[in-house]
Amino acid sequence: MDRIIRIDVGAPGGPRVTEEGLGKYAGFGGRALTSAIVCAEVPPTCHPLGPENKLVIAPGLMAGSAASTSGRLSVGCKSPLTGGIKEANSGGQAAHYLGRLGIAAIVLEGEHNGSDLYKITVNTDGVKVEVDKSLALLPNYALCEKLKETCGDSVAVISIGPAGERKMSNSTIAVTDPEFRPSRHAGRGGVGAVMGSKGVKAIIVDPAGTKMRKPVDPEKFKAANRAFVEGLKRHGVTGQGLPVYGTNILTNVLNEAGGYPAYNFGQGQFDRAADISGETQAALEDERGGPGSSTHGCHRGCSIQCSGTYYDKDGNYLTKQPEYETVWAHGGNCGISDLDVVAKLDFLDDNYGFDTIEMGVSIGVAMEAGVIEFGDAEGAIRLVEEAGQGTPLGCILGAGAATVARCFGVERAPVVKGQAMPAYDPRAVKGIGVTYATSTQGADHTAGYAVAPNILKVGGDIDPLSPEGQADVSRNLQIATAALDSTGFCLFVAFAILDQQDTFDAMVETINAMHGLSLTGDDVVELGKTILRMERGFNASAGFTKEHDRLPSYFTREPLKPHNVVFDVPGEELDQVHAF
Amino acid sequence: MDRIIRIDVGAPGGPRVTEEGLGKYAGFGGRALTSAIVCAEVPPTCHPLGPENKLVIAPGLMAGSAASTSGRLSVGCKSPLTGGIKEANSGGQAAHYLGRLGIAAIVLEGEHNGSDLYKITVNTDGVKVEVDKSLALLPNYALCEKLKETCGDSVAVISIGPAGERKMSNSTIAVTDPEFRPSRHAGRGGVGAVMGSKGVKAIIVDPAGTKMRKPVDPEKFKAANRAFVEGLKRHGVTGQGLPVYGTNILTNVLNEAGGYPAYNFGQGQFDRAADISGETQAALEDERGGPGSSTHGCHRGCSIQCSGTYYDKDGNYLTKQPEYETVWAHGGNCGISDLDVVAKLDFLDDNYGFDTIEMGVSIGVAMEAGVIEFGDAEGAIRLVEEAGQGTPLGCILGAGAATVARCFGVERAPVVKGQAMPAYDPRAVKGIGVTYATSTQGADHTAGYAVAPNILKVGGDIDPLSPEGQADVSRNLQIATAALDSTGFCLFVAFAILDQQDTFDAMVETINAMHGLSLTGDDVVELGKTILRMERGFNASAGFTKEHDRLPSYFTREPLKPHNVVFDVPGEELDQVHAF
Repeated sequence: MDRIIRIDVGAPGGPRVTEEGLGKYAGFGGRALTSAIVCAEVPPTCHPLGPENKLVIAPGLMAGSAASTSGRLSVGCKSPLTGGIKEANSGGQAAHYLGRLGIAAIVLEGEHNGSDLYKITVNTDGVKVEVDKSLALLPNYALCEKLKETCGDSVAVISIGPAGERKMSNSTIAVTDPEFRPSRHAGRGGVGAVMGSKGVKAIIVDPAGTKMRKPVDPEKFKAANRAFVEGLKRHGVTGQGLPVYGTNILTNVLNEAGGYPAYNFGQGQFDRAADISGETQAALEDERGGPGSSTHGCHRGCSIQCSGTYYDKDGNYLTKQPEYETVWAHGGNCGISDLDVVAKLDFLDDNYGFDTIEMGVSIGVAMEAGVIEFGDAEGAIRLVEEAGQGTPLGCILGAGAATVARCFGVERAPVVKGQAMPAYDPRAVKGIGVTYATSTQGADHTAGYAVAPNILKVGGDIDPLSPEGQADVSRNLQIATAALDSTGFCLFVAFAILDQQDTFDAMVETINAMHGLSLTGDDVVELGKTILRMERGFNASAGFTKEHDRLPSYFTREPLKPHNVVFDVPGEELDQVHAF
Repeated sequence: MDRIIRIDVGAPGGPRVTEEGLGKYAGFGGRALTSAIVCAEVPPTCHPLGPENKLVIAPGLMAGSAASTSGRLSVGCKSPLTGGIKEANSGGQAAHYLGRLGIAAIVLEGEHNGSDLYKITVNTDGVKVEVDKSLALLPNYALCEKLKETCGDSVAVISIGPAGERKMSNSTIAVTDPEFRPSRHAGRGGVGAVMGSKGVKAIIVDPAGTKMRKPVDPEKFKAANRAFVEGLKRHGVTGQGLPVYGTNILTNVLNEAGGYPAYNFGQGQFDRAADISGETQAALEDERGGPGSSTHGCHRGCSIQCSGTYYDKDGNYLTKQPEYETVWAHGGNCGISDLDVVAKLDFLDDNYGFDTIEMGVSIGVAMEAGVIEFGDAEGAIRLVEEAGQGTPLGCILGAGAATVARCFGVERAPVVKGQAMPAYDPRAVKGIGVTYATSTQGADHTAGYAVAPNILKVGGDIDPLSPEGQADVSRNLQIATAALDSTGFCLFVAFAILDQQDTFDAMVETINAMHGLSLTGDDVVELGKTILRMERGFNASAGFTKEHDRLPSYFTREPLKPHNVVFDVPGEELDQVHAF
């Protein structure tokens, strides 16, 4: 797994494919690799949709191996949404297949001048780039149906929907799951628009003829992986909570903590939270039944299985199990309490290629502006449909929450660096507020999930309402996460490895056994720091300052019910998060 | 003229009016005063539409006097368009009337919570704030007609149209001209949205019972003013060019120089420039006739009279004489060559309250995106109408060119710090490119009009295609302009005072005689530097860095015809513009 495939879409005579070794990027995978390439090769002040930007698709270090839960994919570029560096992370089958093909990264680069739309096929024969205008503006599900006719369904597809083709700032890159559904997304930061700006509609990754990657030390690997899986099963969150209820188990937890942002971050509790909680959702899914309804992995080889499949009341597939962030964004954040509506919106987002967090928050801001009323489920569906169709109103929504606020003259846009906040109000969960403010990625809960020690009491125990110590918590989590995002392991393993030292050791041991290394925990921390320093450097050169490491001022001014708290972590402490 | 009127729209029980002396702001007027108040009182990282922003309306130091051409008005705030400090400058009758009332500044501040819409009357009795919801969403012309019923037409009105009420990032503050038409605008940076965010629809300034302000040394003043006017008459630009042809005399000049940005900055010449030139326009206006058709001042007491009145073919008033920037923005920039269409668009912009430069460039970007075709005059009118009505497409247009580009996924947005470039391509007029890049105001030709020495050979002679020496040219002009914007003198006096030392001396002498001072040219330069330092400080604290003092990268990448030049003033030189 040491090949970098470059596709220059601006080469004279049409796209040119070249291949090279990892070279100076040796030792890097996933986020480490995407960020390293972006930092080294993309001018920080370039336009995200211009010829100087590059899209880097990189599986993690463990891709293609038998290590449990290691099939996450990193997508990097300069973000059209934030203007800073971006790594968006996805499940799906592509990462493992790329790993089996020995591909460390695919880099899309150059100036796409024409109106050609490309379909790229990657298999053991090499890389083929074809023009296929018949794919134009196909939503992701229809695209996969069409591709299946010629490729079958044992490949993985990395694709953009109409949102990416229209170069919308909220546009995802979809990755097919084990059932060949485009339900897994590198969602945040508008990475789909960068793929669209290169004229690439779909990348088909065909693993036929490949085998699982062999560890350098198979015995050690097997033992370590067994211990790692055992640790995941043993921990309450990864062993019971997530498999049984999915991520939406968090709705009741956050609502009770008063940190659930309802009505566009207007209050910290949602009166109808019970209607859309993970418990309600699991009961509904069980009642309706169907394959994979209660548990499902976003990729094969996952031993957590936090996902599921959502069927309508007649047993028809509606979408994958909507995640907590999605249920919140389209549910409580919009005053909507109908799980079927949320599932419909989740499907539409996946189909057109929108990030559910950014879209839900965009709709919430539109509701704040009076475009539609809070709670208007039909209106919300119509807005996403318009975004998918590219109407003017849809183009506003598709540009993200900050642009919705600008177009409708609204102050209350819950964004940092232009990216919408996820499902934790930073006033009542101050640790995640620090991550929102200071992450290189814009507001992003996955960049340093301080909700764990603040609310879940995993990896520590700190008062979520107190500003004290939150900068330290966020710093450590941001460092650990950057490293984890480079391995290909799912972020959710963090619950177990933070609480159980032996599980952390087992995870590191799988990496060592796979690659013949002798990394320690300190090495993992150093890797995380290296990544964050690179990313911070890119952002600084793009014009970001400490003033951008702040929440919108209304979070420091308007108290949040029920705790009546504002965000009060001092700026000086925020400025120390990256002082390492 | 030493009173600051503050209106706190968030006071308990309704707006509270207070009055105070200049205090620490003594000696400042116009831009110096607006920027000083904004820098001292507005948190740089606040939201422009939030309660912490303030709108400062300040006439210049010479307001209310008999000094020629000294009735310009400054409006300052944190800009909703750029996110940095803003001073927008307008003609009209208000500045002189405020000066006669002894008012140095009106400051709108506080949090406007309700839906109340305020009408403020300022006269010798004091300040009255009334709620008048009947004014809601009235366009500027209808508003003035309605106000005339109760106030007559010998007052001045400072107002916002629907754009400002909707808090659009492109929204102006209109000021009535000598004919009580709302044709003069503090146009740039979205200042109307800040007035809208304070709930203020109109400020009526009634000078009844006031007299012209008396100079400290009347004899010296009279002599100096006479010499000043003589100098303006003597200079070719202020004595002949501007009075006869208006600012649109520049169309042919810039087009011949290859620096006229046609088709959204796609090329440096417009094939139908002759159809919309100042010469063509003047002949048409002469042919149609009517009061003020050929010359007209934006305020009484102007001896340049660069404006005029535009009538349709049947002799009906259409709008004031469209200026060069307007004719370019809606004309050549959009591939439109019909002066009646341009005049119609100018009227619509004034009526709804849009900056013509920002709107024209926004339409150009929409044309680049394929929303309508280049040259589609009916389409352009429809877009401005939609913006005025606040349809979704209109809200995109009304948010400015950068937002249009974001919503439609276009790279080529000719903006700096979010503000649209005016009518000079920075690749072929590199001096103005330096001003666009480095001004505290975003892309703004008036911030340092390097077109003068680059193209007009006024105040110097430097090759417009060469990067050499342009940073020095822009620096000196930015300093001089900041000072001039504080006096209330029109920027156009710069042509005469740059070329004729005795005219410069006469201008300074009018200030000295008016205020009993003994300022020298050096003092004027120091004032300019002081203002720029304040503004730069504000912007730095708002998060602006040298990376924001750059043109969009495509200007350094894509050569402009016919000279096939890119913008190549080195970043290091741009970084030296404010090193003084």
